[in-house]
Amino acid sequence: MTYDNFDPDGQKIKLFTPGPVQVPDWILTELAKPNDTHRSNPYRELHALVRAKMQKLLHTHNDVFFWTNSGTGVMEACIWNLIGPDDKAIFFPCGAFGERWAKTAEQCGKGDNSVIVNVEWGKGVSAELVKKELSQDKYDVVFMTMNETSTGVMNPIWKIGPIVKEYGALLCVDSVSCMAGVDINVDAWGIDVALASTQKCFALPPGLAISSVSAAALEKAKTVPNRGNYFDFLDMLKKSQSNETPSTPAIPLLRALNTMLDYILDEEGPENRYKRHASMAKYIREWAVQQGFEIFSEEGYHSNTVVTIKNNLNLNTAKWVKKAIEHGYRFVDGYGDLKGKTFRIAAMGEISMNDVKEFLTLLMKLFDEVK
Amino acid sequence: MTYDNFDPDGQKIKLFTPGPVQVPDWILTELAKPNDTHRSNPYRELHALVRAKMQKLLHTHNDVFFWTNSGTGVMEACIWNLIGPDDKAIFFPCGAFGERWAKTAEQCGKGDNSVIVNVEWGKGVSAELVKKELSQDKYDVVFMTMNETSTGVMNPIWKIGPIVKEYGALLCVDSVSCMAGVDINVDAWGIDVALASTQKCFALPPGLAISSVSAAALEKAKTVPNRGNYFDFLDMLKKSQSNETPSTPAIPLLRALNTMLDYILDEEGPENRYKRHASMAKYIREWAVQQGFEIFSEEGYHSNTVVTIKNNLNLNTAKWVKKAIEHGYRFVDGYGDLKGKTFRIAAMGEISMNDVKEFLTLLMKLFDEVK
Repeated sequence: MTYDNFDPDGQKIKLFTPGPVQVPDWILTELAKPNDTHRSNPYRELHALVRAKMQKLLHTHNDVFFWTNSGTGVMEACIWNLIGPDDKAIFFPCGAFGERWAKTAEQCGKGDNSVIVNVEWGKGVSAELVKKELSQDKYDVVFMTMNETSTGVMNPIWKIGPIVKEYGALLCVDSVSCMAGVDINVDAWGIDVALASTQKCFALPPGLAISSVSAAALEKAKTVPNRGNYFDFLDMLKKSQSNETPSTPAIPLLRALNTMLDYILDEEGPENRYKRHASMAKYIREWAVQQGFEIFSEEGYHSNTVVTIKNNLNLNTAKWVKKAIEHGYRFVDGYGDLKGKTFRIAAMGEISMNDVKEFLTLLMKLFDEVK
Repeated sequence: MTYDNFDPDGQKIKLFTPGPVQVPDWILTELAKPNDTHRSNPYRELHALVRAKMQKLLHTHNDVFFWTNSGTGVMEACIWNLIGPDDKAIFFPCGAFGERWAKTAEQCGKGDNSVIVNVEWGKGVSAELVKKELSQDKYDVVFMTMNETSTGVMNPIWKIGPIVKEYGALLCVDSVSCMAGVDINVDAWGIDVALASTQKCFALPPGLAISSVSAAALEKAKTVPNRGNYFDFLDMLKKSQSNETPSTPAIPLLRALNTMLDYILDEEGPENRYKRHASMAKYIREWAVQQGFEIFSEEGYHSNTVVTIKNNLNLNTAKWVKKAIEHGYRFVDGYGDLKGKTFRIAAMGEISMNDVKEFLTLLMKLFDEVK
């Protein structure tokens, strides 16, 4: 059986990738159920249920929107809705996805008035750095990546949020690769937009994104012209009030998200889920160090969902990835320029500690072949 | 058993709605299969397969892009990519979705230089009207709705396309509610962007959109600033060349589309599929006339996928819809201001003539209760 070709009967490869991740069978079953239309009471009921559960998960009273697009689309939504012609935005990229956000502002013609504070890849964005920048100039919107998938860095939004609020700016947080894998306290931390997509720690297939949006962000959007149609917060708000979306949503994924949230909130329990993710990431880091590798992310800023490991042993990482696929497992090389210099192991969603141990055992078996 | 509540075990309601439509079981099964990531050979192989099949269906050599958003998003993509600062666009709305397109241009700040030629709801956009307008001024882009879901009108793109080419403009066609239900000859008709989503005549769930994009449209995009990120044709093109998408796509739906295209192209046959849709729409129109109703769409411009019927018998259409739901069927009232004045019956995707007859028999049984 080969995994490296399109298999019409389903690919059984085990994914230790930072999204899309392994989807459990009981979620796949949900996707195969027939649905009513998006202008029906069953849909509205589903929409309302999932919103209430998301509000509980994120500890927020803010509205929650469901977006039929990838998380990247919601990042763009923040640009169109929150940066007005006279506004000054600040970005703190510490990896590829932070850079994507800043680049998106440029692509939308909103880069001229933006400040980009680049942080060396592998380092975290410290609360001190944010405070220093915000104290030096007046900013309207702050864009942060909570979990940087390229470098395995998690930034302390719990410290950064209150600082941003102190300076009176709006705070947008890309939590694509950590929401449902680490605790996010939207209201307590002062996050105006927290966004994520379903193919990471929620363990669903891709095709749906989620965001909480604060009243302050919605008020701001009212003042920003040319927000477009598809990503307009105010269209989303209007339809949200009747438990709908402006255009046709990815209904099967919303149904699956409902089932997953029941599991997270009532069966596993959010705290247990977060502990499980933290333990798996810690185990992977410790394993890597035991093998003689160094961890790419800075101490104190390690991600709980994806571990980026320096390839200081000079293994052939491309070959290692390929060999693992032959054994039915997928992990990933470094991102972009870090290919060959780092590799990444993610443990997100429904992956268990036993799965992690099984996979790391395989990686060790392949050592000699990739030296 | 009640259908008007969210049923966690799956809603079995039969949909005669103009999307989302009934999804056959053998497609639901596809959605429940596990997938590899979007940066894998299996994904790339799937992407390439589906593109080739879409090119065959649309009779085109143009590239085909897969969008993880509703069709509305691709309508917006056309605005961002094809209307430059000095360009003049022309819209021919003849119903709600044509109006949405013109409004989207405004929402993107591109409305100032646009001309909107409103056509009375229920009437079609004639080739003569398009020729008259294009001969009076120089336009860069023409926006057309092929099948207007609100009014049941189908516009003759096969006549309009060659006229638009004669005047040297780009042609964007919203074929959301007819692609895969009627034949579309992208190259022969001169369509630069033909767009659709999966929850209509393809009989898949919502969450994926499709567009062909011509070389001329791609060249044009290179000259248009501030195209944003998510809807950028050139980012899509770049990734398309390696059989990928810029951000994570709705993989389960692409897999299901592959299976559906095999069925359309090799089992039912496109010609048979188009004949079946035409026959069902004709049958619904004839049935309506027999009952004493009038057809809302103008003679010569009837849609082959959705029939909009005047409520000249003054039935309580809202009650009729509700009663039908109690019997396990859903059809829809008129769109927006047409609520109560019209009602709509769609026969899209995998619905058969027998299904249509069964449903119309039920509607007649309910007559006395809604008079």
